Amino acid sequence: MKAKRLKYAMIGGAKGSFIGPIHRMAIRMDDLADLVAGSFSRNPKANAASGEKFRLDPKRVYSDWRELLVAEADKIDFLVVCTTNETHYAIAKAALEAGLDVFCEKPLSLTAKEAVALGKLAAKRRLVLGVPFTYTGYPMVKLARDLVKRGELGKVDKVVIEYQQGSFRKPDRRNSWKMDPKIAGPSCVVADIGVHAFTMIEYVTGLEVKTLLADLSSFASGGLDDDASVLLRLSGGAKASLVTSKIATGEENGVRLRVYGDRASLYWNQEAPNELTVKYPMKPEMVFRRRAPYVEALSPAANRASRFPAGHHEGFVEALGNIYDEFVAAVISRKACDFPGAREGIRSMRFVDACLKSAKLGSRWVRL
Amino acid sequence: MKAKRLKYAMIGGAKGSFIGPIHRMAIRMDDLADLVAGSFSRNPKANAASGEKFRLDPKRVYSDWRELLVAEADKIDFLVVCTTNETHYAIAKAALEAGLDVFCEKPLSLTAKEAVALGKLAAKRRLVLGVPFTYTGYPMVKLARDLVKRGELGKVDKVVIEYQQGSFRKPDRRNSWKMDPKIAGPSCVVADIGVHAFTMIEYVTGLEVKTLLADLSSFASGGLDDDASVLLRLSGGAKASLVTSKIATGEENGVRLRVYGDRASLYWNQEAPNELTVKYPMKPEMVFRRRAPYVEALSPAANRASRFPAGHHEGFVEALGNIYDEFVAAVISRKACDFPGAREGIRSMRFVDACLKSAKLGSRWVRL
Amino acid sequence: MKAKRLKYAMIGGAKGSFIGPIHRMAIRMDDLADLVAGSFSRNPKANAASGEKFRLDPKRVYSDWRELLVAEADKIDFLVVCTTNETHYAIAKAALEAGLDVFCEKPLSLTAKEAVALGKLAAKRRLVLGVPFTYTGYPMVKLARDLVKRGELGKVDKVVIEYQQGSFRKPDRRNSWKMDPKIAGPSCVVADIGVHAFTMIEYVTGLEVKTLLADLSSFASGGLDDDASVLLRLSGGAKASLVTSKIATGEENGVRLRVYGDRASLYWNQEAPNELTVKYPMKPEMVFRRRAPYVEALSPAANRASRFPAGHHEGFVEALGNIYDEFVAAVISRKACDFPGAREGIRSMRFVDACLKSAKLGSRWVRL
Amino acid sequence: MKAKRLKYAMIGGAKGSFIGPIHRMAIRMDDLADLVAGSFSRNPKANAASGEKFRLDPKRVYSDWRELLVAEADKIDFLVVCTTNETHYAIAKAALEAGLDVFCEKPLSLTAKEAVALGKLAAKRRLVLGVPFTYTGYPMVKLARDLVKRGELGKVDKVVIEYQQGSFRKPDRRNSWKMDPKIAGPSCVVADIGVHAFTMIEYVTGLEVKTLLADLSSFASGGLDDDASVLLRLSGGAKASLVTSKIATGEENGVRLRVYGDRASLYWNQEAPNELTVKYPMKPEMVFRRRAPYVEALSPAANRASRFPAGHHEGFVEALGNIYDEFVAAVISRKACDFPGAREGIRSMRFVDACLKSAKLGSRWVRL
Repeated sequence: MKAKRLKYAMIGGAKGSFIGPIHRMAIRMDDLADLVAGSFSRNPKANAASGEKFRLDPKRVYSDWRELLVAEADKIDFLVVCTTNETHYAIAKAALEAGLDVFCEKPLSLTAKEAVALGKLAAKRRLVLGVPFTYTGYPMVKLARDLVKRGELGKVDKVVIEYQQGSFRKPDRRNSWKMDPKIAGPSCVVADIGVHAFTMIEYVTGLEVKTLLADLSSFASGGLDDDASVLLRLSGGAKASLVTSKIATGEENGVRLRVYGDRASLYWNQEAPNELTVKYPMKPEMVFRRRAPYVEALSPAANRASRFPAGHHEGFVEALGNIYDEFVAAVISRKACDFPGAREGIRSMRFVDACLKSAKLGSRWVRL
Repeated sequence: MKAKRLKYAMIGGAKGSFIGPIHRMAIRMDDLADLVAGSFSRNPKANAASGEKFRLDPKRVYSDWRELLVAEADKIDFLVVCTTNETHYAIAKAALEAGLDVFCEKPLSLTAKEAVALGKLAAKRRLVLGVPFTYTGYPMVKLARDLVKRGELGKVDKVVIEYQQGSFRKPDRRNSWKMDPKIAGPSCVVADIGVHAFTMIEYVTGLEVKTLLADLSSFASGGLDDDASVLLRLSGGAKASLVTSKIATGEENGVRLRVYGDRASLYWNQEAPNELTVKYPMKPEMVFRRRAPYVEALSPAANRASRFPAGHHEGFVEALGNIYDEFVAAVISRKACDFPGAREGIRSMRFVDACLKSAKLGSRWVRL
Repeated sequence: MKAKRLKYAMIGGAKGSFIGPIHRMAIRMDDLADLVAGSFSRNPKANAASGEKFRLDPKRVYSDWRELLVAEADKIDFLVVCTTNETHYAIAKAALEAGLDVFCEKPLSLTAKEAVALGKLAAKRRLVLGVPFTYTGYPMVKLARDLVKRGELGKVDKVVIEYQQGSFRKPDRRNSWKMDPKIAGPSCVVADIGVHAFTMIEYVTGLEVKTLLADLSSFASGGLDDDASVLLRLSGGAKASLVTSKIATGEENGVRLRVYGDRASLYWNQEAPNELTVKYPMKPEMVFRRRAPYVEALSPAANRASRFPAGHHEGFVEALGNIYDEFVAAVISRKACDFPGAREGIRSMRFVDACLKSAKLGSRWVRL
Repeated sequence: MKAKRLKYAMIGGAKGSFIGPIHRMAIRMDDLADLVAGSFSRNPKANAASGEKFRLDPKRVYSDWRELLVAEADKIDFLVVCTTNETHYAIAKAALEAGLDVFCEKPLSLTAKEAVALGKLAAKRRLVLGVPFTYTGYPMVKLARDLVKRGELGKVDKVVIEYQQGSFRKPDRRNSWKMDPKIAGPSCVVADIGVHAFTMIEYVTGLEVKTLLADLSSFASGGLDDDASVLLRLSGGAKASLVTSKIATGEENGVRLRVYGDRASLYWNQEAPNELTVKYPMKPEMVFRRRAPYVEALSPAANRASRFPAGHHEGFVEALGNIYDEFVAAVISRKACDFPGAREGIRSMRFVDACLKSAKLGSRWVRL
């Protein structure tokens, strides 16, 4: 007899969109679940064409996501939400109320208050809520976290993180909705990619950001922040500098993380994701590589999150696949697993709120 | 009505093997076909466990690959062969004779003669034969080929390629069958990875290797070649140096290609696969990146072989996925597509034969 | 008849010190001047041993720098000051008053007020004052400046600079005087290396820092700042983030500069100083290399600051040599040349003052 | 009393030449000796202008090198020869016969026979003969040699070295004399830069090349070799592949060395000369950096060959300076020191002879 295979539905993420195909591929990667229903686009043609391309029963392709929830809540194992920001809260709320486990794109909501409400709802209903802070799914980021946890770096004192994109310097207007406060919400770069950088800080160091100050700019977006410099203070006395931008001309997806402890430091660069550099005061620099034989003992999680032998590169979709592996494990087991969820969704929205507040106050320190 | 979905069977590639999972994942990546039958291992337990893991009907999990061919030939669209070298020829031959399109691991056979026979059979039966020279599936390798084709490098004069692994320096004995002539055949490193390097030369330059001389060594394998240095002469007067090894301590999967034309040169390194470096005599070095806006005009093939936006890394399984995309397109359309097949399988076996012959003659030049 | 050869004296910089030998070597590099007198150390033995090693007439080796100024002012062409911070102002002042051109280590003084006084004095006496902001001497930094000046980057919007050292994480106590406010002055990391980073921002962009806010920390130095994060606002609306540290474990001398304009961005890393990376939204990344044929037209200054053909690396001492070339040219010609001097010395001390003030005010914005 | 300062004369190396200024700078770097006489060019104007620029007494600037030897032999401590290849032998021979220690550019002669004669002459007269195989002067190359010597790599099995230049692809004709057999001798690329690569193999591994086979090409030079692929067999059973070219378009000075032992491997790249990478089968890759605290215990020679703290880059002229440091130490002490001399000069010319002979025999193996 065949093992049970999970079923999922997707809202948003029509064919040709940026993020929808990545979710579907990430789920297929380890053969976790079948897409069985969707409401992919408010555009009826695009919606139908997507359903056809994904070989869905046309009856299970819905023009309104509310109909999908009503019709499919009992037939699917989880829901993936890939819509634009302004709808995340309403959809995730309705889905949780319908008893569904939900995997919802970031930002989880437009405000921390909404995120907290979703978190409470999920907790009350004992439902699984996942949020794709994809960079936490990279094996070498898991190794980084585990090296910190094992004390390899000593006490962490300083974090320097950049997440730099140059997308707003391109003629391509595909991302223009991100500049529209009605769709994107009150923040652009901070809510869109700053939240990734913020989540990396807390994920890798295991520390909590306590206060921050922010200087936000709008160089090319006509109002919303498209460039941000943020200083942060963490539990235990550590400090961090976070820089993120959409106007960093020529940058593709420059996520660069440096963590300095009093015994060693580490460096991870998303554009060379299969390696992690560790520097010591009195030893040669060490470059750890994915799936190398020494990784397993240091970080079983990093090893488990690898599919292919060392030297055969894994990338972005594998990282998201790793997050789905853990999310689906939680869906099946109803136990906590290693993926970003309600907590990270809420923390990251508190970060967005705090950045906006600090900027309004002329870069004053504000509590998270 | 749902679109037709292809079906395939696999011989070899049990769960836990190295290469089997990569094939399955590569096929799933773009949702090309469903695995419906298999004969995964000569070990009955491993075979059954694999079938169960892949959720196959146990009746379609065969202890003998011949049975599979008899029972499934009419029910599947193509066959994937992931067994050890010594069986490739017999399986591929039987499958082609059964009228199946075949995707067979490299080396396609143990000798050029066998490879030629398979090529003739496939041609006669108008069947599709694919061989996973996976590195030709990388977008930046396709860009490299297209830059050469467009004359960007001018006349190609010299190629320098390395494919260096240190696997035989590890205590891990997983690869020990590769040292056994009864399983691996008459060559180890040349047949196992040298063929990739050879294929890259011809694929990227569009030139043909005419003669070569080889110096083969056996440092750690007890007889078969585990290290090789090969000099090659190509059509049009170009020359190449190819170095490949299993005893290159500490190397993971070091495929490094340099092509020097009289106008420009290019460099691609499999360990940073999303970029291609082009050097000019009088201009700054240029680094081309996967899916960057300037790639499409230069190489539609490179762009088509990309899934995610620039900056979001793709790796090994995507490269194999690209080869499967084209293979499956050929299976459906019955037309020539852009993937390595009978020709590359035959050429690479001629290369193996020539290396062995040259080495036996004390590194004399021999014709391919 | 032999051409006139310049003569100089040095205060501080005994043999075995860090910075003294570099100055002497930098001056020798292009055969600019002969060391003829010195007061190298307050330790009489070290002072004499240095004079002997440098083959000086023992009569011209002085135990007190004031004596040196009295005895040598008419016999030397310029004075080099390599002492610890707390003496810079007094020595430079006395030397200028004695009519000498002065090349004085950074920080030029302990406060902006002192630096201004030195600047005024030099201007009034029409004397040359040089300050070794050595990174501005690198050919590729000059190219960076000239690319900005030519408009290649468009309007500069954002600068991100790091200057990271891990020296305070080493057992080596050679730098411990830098933690002592009586010697180092009121600031450690900001005055010691932050000033380099600051100067790079203004040198490369041609913009002026208008206001800043700073968060200073003392993790390992017992009081003085050894880690700093600074946000800056520049003329024309550009913004900058500057991070500098002495507790960045494992970092050697990590100066990394990124400048983002609205047309292109540039990246320079002191640990690969012979290259400059320029990124465009719609073109391949370009790597410019020192002395490559395309550099001359873009930046005669970069080319003039190079000694060897492309591919033959130049480093730190060559950069300082370049600054001395220009300083000595000014000494001879009495005209403005391309080296950091009074202006940069004053600006950098305003930066130090502002950082200290902002930190004291809880990271408030302060004017420079 | 002042310590004695050495005096030297130079033949060839007029101002504006490539290699002359580097020698003079390398000697000045550590203040080793004063240039007091020269015969810089056969062009009288260039000769006189050079003397003037170097502030020499015009009487000590000679139009004929023979006159220089006669007049200066008793007044100088050593002679530097920077002329074109065809004159090396005659000048070095005459200088040694005049009792002078000689530092002569590579290739030391046009044939191995001549090099042997010079070696014998130097030995007989107990004179010091130095040859600038400059890459052996890099600190990290000395560390590489010492790591091998200490057994860190285990038994060396394979060496892969490239020395790639693209100079013959540039319009610049400054190097055109290197294509002229009357000046360059019977070999171009092998004698000009191949000898560097060859010397690196023997210097770093401590092994001797026993036999080789070569495939030489002439793509752009009109007859002499401008591209070479050489396979080598070393004492102890190790093998090597050496590729060198003048037609490697876009390469500046690509010296890349990989040494594979049975315990570890190392990699050094002249274009990032301050680091040495060591790879192990079961440990993270380690990057050793110049003057880092762990270097001294592993290689006192590497540390001694460093001038500045880690992170402050040294380059080409420092490497040559290191060779001069050791050469001058030998000149003073009359004892063996760590610099390439007669032995390396002879070995490298045997290499040239063997390459030419092998190529003529259709790439047959020939003994060195």
